[in-house]
Amino acid sequence: MRIAVDAAGREPGLRVVVQGVMDALGTAPGSEVQFRPVLYGPETELRQALEELDVPSDAVDIVDAPEVIEMDDLPHEALTSKPNSSIVRATKDLSAGLVDAFVSMGNTGAVVGACRAFVDRLRWINKPALGVPLPRKKGMGFMVDVGATPDPKSGHMLQFAAMGSAFVERVYGINEPRVGLLNIGTESHKGDERSRDVYKLLQRSPLNFIGNIEGGDIFEDRADVIVTTGFVGNVLLKFTEAIPGMLQDRLTGTGLSVTGDGALADLDYRRYGGATLLGVDGTVVIGHGRSTAGAVARAMRWASKMVHGHAVEAIRDCVFKTRRAVWLSNPFARGETIDEP
Amino acid sequence: MRIAVDAAGREPGLRVVVQGVMDALGTAPGSEVQFRPVLYGPETELRQALEELDVPSDAVDIVDAPEVIEMDDLPHEALTSKPNSSIVRATKDLSAGLVDAFVSMGNTGAVVGACRAFVDRLRWINKPALGVPLPRKKGMGFMVDVGATPDPKSGHMLQFAAMGSAFVERVYGINEPRVGLLNIGTESHKGDERSRDVYKLLQRSPLNFIGNIEGGDIFEDRADVIVTTGFVGNVLLKFTEAIPGMLQDRLTGTGLSVTGDGALADLDYRRYGGATLLGVDGTVVIGHGRSTAGAVARAMRWASKMVHGHAVEAIRDCVFKTRRAVWLSNPFARGETIDEP
Repeated sequence: MRIAVDAAGREPGLRVVVQGVMDALGTAPGSEVQFRPVLYGPETELRQALEELDVPSDAVDIVDAPEVIEMDDLPHEALTSKPNSSIVRATKDLSAGLVDAFVSMGNTGAVVGACRAFVDRLRWINKPALGVPLPRKKGMGFMVDVGATPDPKSGHMLQFAAMGSAFVERVYGINEPRVGLLNIGTESHKGDERSRDVYKLLQRSPLNFIGNIEGGDIFEDRADVIVTTGFVGNVLLKFTEAIPGMLQDRLTGTGLSVTGDGALADLDYRRYGGATLLGVDGTVVIGHGRSTAGAVARAMRWASKMVHGHAVEAIRDCVFKTRRAVWLSNPFARGETIDEP
Repeated sequence: MRIAVDAAGREPGLRVVVQGVMDALGTAPGSEVQFRPVLYGPETELRQALEELDVPSDAVDIVDAPEVIEMDDLPHEALTSKPNSSIVRATKDLSAGLVDAFVSMGNTGAVVGACRAFVDRLRWINKPALGVPLPRKKGMGFMVDVGATPDPKSGHMLQFAAMGSAFVERVYGINEPRVGLLNIGTESHKGDERSRDVYKLLQRSPLNFIGNIEGGDIFEDRADVIVTTGFVGNVLLKFTEAIPGMLQDRLTGTGLSVTGDGALADLDYRRYGGATLLGVDGTVVIGHGRSTAGAVARAMRWASKMVHGHAVEAIRDCVFKTRRAVWLSNPFARGETIDEP
């Protein structure tokens, strides 16, 4: 399989990305799924970096993308003003089937925007969602959405649940993953109107819905898929990412660290592959701008796992089955709840 | 001043509450504001606990409240079915002016419900809000709302901002506290429609509005008052409260602890006074059910500080001034935005 890699921009820097790609290629050959990286970025600089890192010139493909979308560029402006940027070119190639997946550590808004503009939406899905793994006391949880759709309707959140469920089943290998709705109390009547509506839809779905979970349950081994709005998910994700920094300040002088390999190492978000964009007809992984080479490598492996496990097809099928079951359980409610544009 | 104390229920338990009240009375006499505790709870058990703890019988007043609202009681049912509970009796006495403040570690929903039912709402305020202190890298932030109004209108959130601002000014002694709106990006157009509306209202207000802050900024010394919906605030608060437990698991064997007095001690939410209910005509502090005696004492001192600093009057005045300024800046928008029931 061919994986497009965004190798442009100042964060995390071209050399870090190239190093990460090489790490992913080099680690455990045979046991890992094989892939061929296609680097999108300014060709001259890329060739120079490859040479400096002693990468044989036939190990990777290069697509020249001289324009760079910066972290602070406005996504909708950048997509039209920079057609030769790595993000625009790679998403177009993904859509055309020239590559099987796209991994970027760039401007999240621009990647999501480019996918909305150039990659087909999966059938049955009205809104895309970003899903991320979250460290728990034991194992990992998966939260969806963390920012692609800040203000979803209840029907969209049903789709988030189905997409997350299919993803976790295929990529983490968890059968019938437990789906929890993030709310401010465990009873079904809690929360705002949207939460109550989503609760009812999830109850009628074939998903393994375990009910509401609260903020304090996120670290617990309760739900494998945590469903929430892009607004709440984004606030929580950024808050979570700030925990290591907050702790580091307090841990100065104690000998413990969140960046090393100690007891707190798994709190560092850079250890995870990144976010995945669910609901588009392609495998898209978006890593953090401040990623290390190791994080880039993990994002690559994650993308290859998604392609290998046919995660996108599983997501489409799961959303279809879920919507059909919910619709059949109460056909007259259809227009109001599960089929919103 | 007289402070009513909820001394009923199994969490944290009658003896812990009595011990906390005694600690608050005993600490640094002279330097602290003086108050007289009024214990609301089952009289026989209370007298027994006081005797066991060697408390002179004239040190406290006791109001017999034999009925107990449990943590899992439904608030609206408990308030009518248990009129002789500590929560109902104390809020009625607060409303009648028999006590100056009410401190409870009980069922938050029941306390908020009782205050809505029996205590007048402050003039100019349409919805109550719960505010809590949040530990930061440096000093403390104050978040409002954390659950009293899960789904506020934009006009309500303007009131939250004004209430939080007045509270922080009076109780923390910070002049012109910086008000930040919790959002999913720093630009004014980010977030959902409500966030954009609140942003505009806050810009037109006389408050020291510094703009949007993101989830990652909560730990930073950026905003003194963090304004958000009760839904988002509640999820975040419960998530924050779960951090020490999550860390404790990982810290086993490292010699560090979040419960002791070490580097991480200030992450323990039990060290803070609790939440305060803003928008009602009375001083109400709600501590955590799992409070220690020390936390009860801190809640008592916090309540006395609020009464001493005339925080309730300051809150009312600040909301009035804020609403007037916003209204004057655009009188025609009044009905739509700042005066919602």
